[in-house]
Amino acid sequence: MKKLTILGSTGSIGTQTLDVVNSDREAYEIQGLAAGSNIKLLIEQAKHFQPKVVCVSSKALAEEAKPYLPAGTSVVYGEEGLIEIAAGTDADTVVTAIVGSRGLNATLAAINEGKHIGLANKETLVTAGHIVMKQAKARGVKILPIDSEHSAIFQCLNGEIRSTVKAITLTASGGSFRDRTRKELEGVTVKEALNHPNWSMGAKITIDSATMANKGLEVIEAHWLFNLSYEQINVLLHPESIIHSYVEFIDNSIIAQLGLPDMRVPIQYALTYPDRQPTPTESLNLAKIAALHFREMDFDRYPCLRMAFDSGKAGQSAPTVFNAANETAVARFLGGEITFLDIERVIETVLSRHIIVDVPDVQSIAEVDAWARKEASLV
Amino acid sequence: MKKLTILGSTGSIGTQTLDVVNSDREAYEIQGLAAGSNIKLLIEQAKHFQPKVVCVSSKALAEEAKPYLPAGTSVVYGEEGLIEIAAGTDADTVVTAIVGSRGLNATLAAINEGKHIGLANKETLVTAGHIVMKQAKARGVKILPIDSEHSAIFQCLNGEIRSTVKAITLTASGGSFRDRTRKELEGVTVKEALNHPNWSMGAKITIDSATMANKGLEVIEAHWLFNLSYEQINVLLHPESIIHSYVEFIDNSIIAQLGLPDMRVPIQYALTYPDRQPTPTESLNLAKIAALHFREMDFDRYPCLRMAFDSGKAGQSAPTVFNAANETAVARFLGGEITFLDIERVIETVLSRHIIVDVPDVQSIAEVDAWARKEASLV
Repeated sequence: MKKLTILGSTGSIGTQTLDVVNSDREAYEIQGLAAGSNIKLLIEQAKHFQPKVVCVSSKALAEEAKPYLPAGTSVVYGEEGLIEIAAGTDADTVVTAIVGSRGLNATLAAINEGKHIGLANKETLVTAGHIVMKQAKARGVKILPIDSEHSAIFQCLNGEIRSTVKAITLTASGGSFRDRTRKELEGVTVKEALNHPNWSMGAKITIDSATMANKGLEVIEAHWLFNLSYEQINVLLHPESIIHSYVEFIDNSIIAQLGLPDMRVPIQYALTYPDRQPTPTESLNLAKIAALHFREMDFDRYPCLRMAFDSGKAGQSAPTVFNAANETAVARFLGGEITFLDIERVIETVLSRHIIVDVPDVQSIAEVDAWARKEASLV
Repeated sequence: MKKLTILGSTGSIGTQTLDVVNSDREAYEIQGLAAGSNIKLLIEQAKHFQPKVVCVSSKALAEEAKPYLPAGTSVVYGEEGLIEIAAGTDADTVVTAIVGSRGLNATLAAINEGKHIGLANKETLVTAGHIVMKQAKARGVKILPIDSEHSAIFQCLNGEIRSTVKAITLTASGGSFRDRTRKELEGVTVKEALNHPNWSMGAKITIDSATMANKGLEVIEAHWLFNLSYEQINVLLHPESIIHSYVEFIDNSIIAQLGLPDMRVPIQYALTYPDRQPTPTESLNLAKIAALHFREMDFDRYPCLRMAFDSGKAGQSAPTVFNAANETAVARFLGGEITFLDIERVIETVLSRHIIVDVPDVQSIAEVDAWARKEASLV
């Protein structure tokens, strides 16, 4: 039986992780569930899965939730509570499905306690890949990717000799505006931007898909996860999102992972690896899909992806700035404060103002992050 | 250094195998080369690769070739010579690239001597899968598939737990007549039939692609190679031949192998497995291909495939009859004796007349084979 703690249990990845757990109750035990402010859903989840502990974002919410929690479930809160629930339970695996850079400290705390990580929080590796991968190696902890693209690459590397990898290709659907020119992006609404053609995801990542900032974060994540240079990482437009990503080997053989777009497959794979078990998902019928299409990535059409590659290559604190500026800009767009095209303008401006910090530690990362957020909120 | 013997060195797979060897001369040593009657090319190959021994089909050809062979190269001939060259050299791997059922005895002799098999001779498994796989297991010998489809499946299974395989899908280009109706197949010429859209192959296999008999033989081969039931083996029309085949696992995740159609990739993989090395081939650019298409297999359009599945399910001596009748019918078509559509009529008639022999041994297989060839030459 696998003992799990889920950070971000009420979000898109969190609920789908619980869906996977629910489909095979004998196989899993839920140790901890951490949410932000959606205590209504968290209480429901606690009643159903009977975790030892839950975590919410504030003391007030903790007190509000307390009377409704099962007898055996305690409640913690805040940043400290998040670290406690990540590191302090009997979980063998912690699924980090929190959006944004808050996940880093909790993830590091879990790794320190020797817990395997089901990684859905991109920012952990984007901002602190050099720290996280080193610590995971030192503690003998597996970083199991939950993103569909990274799970695909991870699956394609099964049984292969790492030195025979020539390159990897992350596929990108192109997001909600893939058929629009840059001219046609002027004045698009939040509602239009949230209408992703293939995947059901949270708001932030859906906007990141439309700007291709999401793919950029994935490129940086892949660099750390698979120990590849940026020259070995390609991005390909593939509107149908059926080929989730692939690996090219030095013999020109390509191994790809395919499936209908359903996050429960990569989520479960991270939980059952190296085994596989039936999922509550549908089988892919390629004859029914009939055709798969591919187009070269256009870095002029998607400047956020170009900036992500440049930040990744610059390394050090640059990816933290890219990520924080993007996170802030997306929040401002979702709040109706700036336009869709302003997102890339904000990132570009903040990146241009940043003086790189070499090999930043967790403290410097937090400082750079805060600086970038502040800058991004003003430009 | 890998020591190789190639049975069928002057054919399509044989010459491409030598092309692979030539691209990395330090990695390979050629122990033996067996050809049929193309002694001109065999002599050239012997001069270039300096094998210890070569084999030709008859004593007359052996004597004709002898004066032109390098000093260190001896010559053997006939069925006995083929067994000698397969089993009697220091080769660690024998590539069986002979077309037709002649390859069986030589393959079994090589396995008995503990030599790994690079298998390009489909008929070995189609007619005697139960004998070959058992003997390979007993001798601890690897059967490494060279067919692009089986190599694809073999690669997709890397590092996976066999019990998690749900099904495999072999892709089929549809061959030279894939856009014609059955009505339009009446009166097609040999020249038209030999014009395969994607792969450069020998004449017999090109005709087998057009009738889908080739895919049928591959289905039976896959049954033995991967220990799968016929219900677990699917065939999908995929005109571009870019996805060479794929495995679906019980979690609905699909792992596929892709590449430009070039046999040198699967040939080399069989020689370097589990390692990979650069090949003298081109890299696949999916953006350049732009689209991949898929259609359900139509068993009414391709009755040879239906008959292959039925023969496979019947098992025992039935696949031998399917194979021998097909081989004879294709030879008659290539000789201008019967029409293209007669090929399936011949197979169907011979199959209907066959009384199944249970668990046939090598002797019974040879008898059934001879009977089916005789029948197929008359109907």
